[in-house]
Amino acid sequence: MSFVPSEMTTAEVEASELLYGGLAQDVRHLVDVAIRTNVDADRVAAARALVRQAEQVLAEDASTEPAGIQFNTEGRSWNWGNAVVGVRNAIAPPVILRWSDDGSVRSEVDLGVAYEGPPGCVHGGVSALLLDHLMGETASAAHTRLIVTGTLTLRYLQPLPLGRVRMQAQVTNEDDRKVTVTAHLGPDGGEPAVEATGLFIVPRWAREGSVSGSLD
Amino acid sequence: MSFVPSEMTTAEVEASELLYGGLAQDVRHLVDVAIRTNVDADRVAAARALVRQAEQVLAEDASTEPAGIQFNTEGRSWNWGNAVVGVRNAIAPPVILRWSDDGSVRSEVDLGVAYEGPPGCVHGGVSALLLDHLMGETASAAHTRLIVTGTLTLRYLQPLPLGRVRMQAQVTNEDDRKVTVTAHLGPDGGEPAVEATGLFIVPRWAREGSVSGSLD
Repeated sequence: MSFVPSEMTTAEVEASELLYGGLAQDVRHLVDVAIRTNVDADRVAAARALVRQAEQVLAEDASTEPAGIQFNTEGRSWNWGNAVVGVRNAIAPPVILRWSDDGSVRSEVDLGVAYEGPPGCVHGGVSALLLDHLMGETASAAHTRLIVTGTLTLRYLQPLPLGRVRMQAQVTNEDDRKVTVTAHLGPDGGEPAVEATGLFIVPRWAREGSVSGSLD
Repeated sequence: MSFVPSEMTTAEVEASELLYGGLAQDVRHLVDVAIRTNVDADRVAAARALVRQAEQVLAEDASTEPAGIQFNTEGRSWNWGNAVVGVRNAIAPPVILRWSDDGSVRSEVDLGVAYEGPPGCVHGGVSALLLDHLMGETASAAHTRLIVTGTLTLRYLQPLPLGRVRMQAQVTNEDDRKVTVTAHLGPDGGEPAVEATGLFIVPRWAREGSVSGSLD
């Protein structure tokens, strides 16, 4: 497990995100409609042929490795394959985080039919996935320190309908290498559906400060 | 939030799963290669055109609603869009659960590059997503009672490399409407990477027994 230095400039990183991020966005729409479609077997076969052709085009030059986390000399880092924030990962909504001056981190995200658990509602495990990531990033203090998740406790208060959800996290305690983060997630404009408390640890080997960021 | 009765026979349900499940499997491969590809802008454009064509074919006849949970008169139920086990959902690996006679539930699943968090490792939130689902199903006692998640506590013991993971859950306590489930998840053949305890609740309105299953 390591962070890989890259020779890409930040401008090149952003151009690459635009290119491959656009592709991922199209794939997200495909994931969504593949759940909702009622077309007949012939049309499913036609769609599958197109999807396989697209896959072949993309496989002509592809890494066999996961995307990992890379960084450049301008201080930019990126994790394109991340399951929550990866712009190249069609599984990720993707979540875009906003840091406030007070250290809290917020995000809004639209969760479609692919995130379903109970009928019409967000899967409880998807709420856990999003909160785990948000809270890890919060504990990393905007990537100024490296942390790992120790424990995560989630309290489910009410069902959360699919659609726009809001979440927020903040550090509530710091004690030597232990960072406590609390968070909540709920429908846009509504009461929290899930509350969470996380204990994050700064590994001994990471205290020297040569690396930083959340390992989520 | 409701379970919808369906007039499909179990044979029809299985034929439908084969048809649309095959499509979802192709889309999973596309999600994977879209993260790993290094093809140039022209080939990305070609792949995007194919993906959009496929999307249009599937959108010719598509529901606007999430898949929900359906059941038929033969006692079969299905949740095709579920984020963990939905066979039509390309976000779901999908997980296939195995119930043991002693009430424990196990599963093995291969997690590829789309489930990444720390470099080369499974996202901690993905472990939470899988465990939440597994534990909910376990608490439902093979769908003989309806439960909702109360609290879920996860302890992260070590990083979990991408690849095959195994998980297991069992009921460890039952007290009136409260069901306690413990679980762990780890690399194939290795020590647990994540341990979890969950408290699940049988809602008062569900005690009458007209509905059953996990609401995850």
